[in-house]
Amino acid sequence: MTVDTAAYPVTPRNRVKRMHERASYDRAAVHAVLDAAMLCHVAYVIDGQPYATPTLFWRREDTLYWHGSSASRMLRHLKAGTPACLTVAHLDSLVLARSGFNHSANYRSAMCFGTARLVEDADEKIEAMRDVVDRFYPGRSALLRPITQQEAKATTIIAMEIEEAAAKVRAKGVGDDEADFALPIWAGVIPVTTVLGAVQTCPRLVAGVEPPEGLSIFAENGRLDDALLAGQRLYEDG
Amino acid sequence: MTVDTAAYPVTPRNRVKRMHERASYDRAAVHAVLDAAMLCHVAYVIDGQPYATPTLFWRREDTLYWHGSSASRMLRHLKAGTPACLTVAHLDSLVLARSGFNHSANYRSAMCFGTARLVEDADEKIEAMRDVVDRFYPGRSALLRPITQQEAKATTIIAMEIEEAAAKVRAKGVGDDEADFALPIWAGVIPVTTVLGAVQTCPRLVAGVEPPEGLSIFAENGRLDDALLAGQRLYEDG
Repeated sequence: MTVDTAAYPVTPRNRVKRMHERASYDRAAVHAVLDAAMLCHVAYVIDGQPYATPTLFWRREDTLYWHGSSASRMLRHLKAGTPACLTVAHLDSLVLARSGFNHSANYRSAMCFGTARLVEDADEKIEAMRDVVDRFYPGRSALLRPITQQEAKATTIIAMEIEEAAAKVRAKGVGDDEADFALPIWAGVIPVTTVLGAVQTCPRLVAGVEPPEGLSIFAENGRLDDALLAGQRLYEDG
Repeated sequence: MTVDTAAYPVTPRNRVKRMHERASYDRAAVHAVLDAAMLCHVAYVIDGQPYATPTLFWRREDTLYWHGSSASRMLRHLKAGTPACLTVAHLDSLVLARSGFNHSANYRSAMCFGTARLVEDADEKIEAMRDVVDRFYPGRSALLRPITQQEAKATTIIAMEIEEAAAKVRAKGVGDDEADFALPIWAGVIPVTTVLGAVQTCPRLVAGVEPPEGLSIFAENGRLDDALLAGQRLYEDG
């Protein structure tokens, strides 16, 4: 038996049940969804109550990192960590069919399962505080005012190794029942894109300071997902 | 004592701890975030494991509805329902500061807490199946091929009355430490917007069928959040 290192293991936790033909367990497919995003939702259970907390996150190999949240207080008491699920979803288009039932949306999503732990090692934490800047803004941490001890103390970072994951993608046109295509009802697809606007320089900027080169991936009218994918490649090569 | 019907009650479950100055418990503030979105993340606990499931949702007064998911099987066995958290987050801009610590993002988010239940009443289900179309595409359900019994049977819809909720919004420029503004480091804001593309008519459309009037809220290059807010107003005015 060979272990498929190109794919995450499939268990009852991450096996996609609904529309399973849209699913993939390949590492590359999961990473492509994750790396195109900045915002995720993390699900935790605190005292029996589930929370879906929106937060910025980033990926380093098979580890996901995010900033402290309502879970950090809980995690301080749970040295072994706690089960979590980190999900990313991109909405790509609205799909209007000839029946209500076949209305749909195109999307790319990834759900990652693992055990969330507090980053407590001082070196790992400082490195993560630099990484969160450099992953989104290539080369930026070296240009900034250094991190203070007080800031490191006030920052909580959570890490989770991806144990299992699944990507789910719909990327096609109207999927009507065959007989319905003959009906005189309008149907079509409305694309949705998340784009970057013109950079707004801080009004208190010291005169003469130019935007750094690393910002060029965020060109006006570019797609946010493309910029983030480019940033992740630079971060991995960097 | 008067009950504040304009705001959701504040309990340990929905009280915002981190950056609490960004929080609001007003119904109108929470609804403004929800109604500008189509995609949410629902957190459930299944056998001790939390799941953050991305799904389309809609609001009718204080009830949130979404389509069947991994939770529907669980809910069939839990007639009393199960605790859930439905979250919406809009990313509005990236905020680059002079220190790593003050890097941030502008966003609008809402977390809603309640008890998820399966919609089992046949009339409530058919109404919800029409509502999910009309809420997003004003007046559209009347133009479609009618819902079949088989489709109603194959559809699972989950409902949750909002018991508690909180909105959290950051909408400002760079928030550097006062002393850092004098540093020769570039800082600024990069806006992020989710916009609509040109409608792609289904290639199998019957000749001569025109797009319906209700689609006018999805004008090319318009903002998705504005279109969805307009759709919700039309849905409420009915």
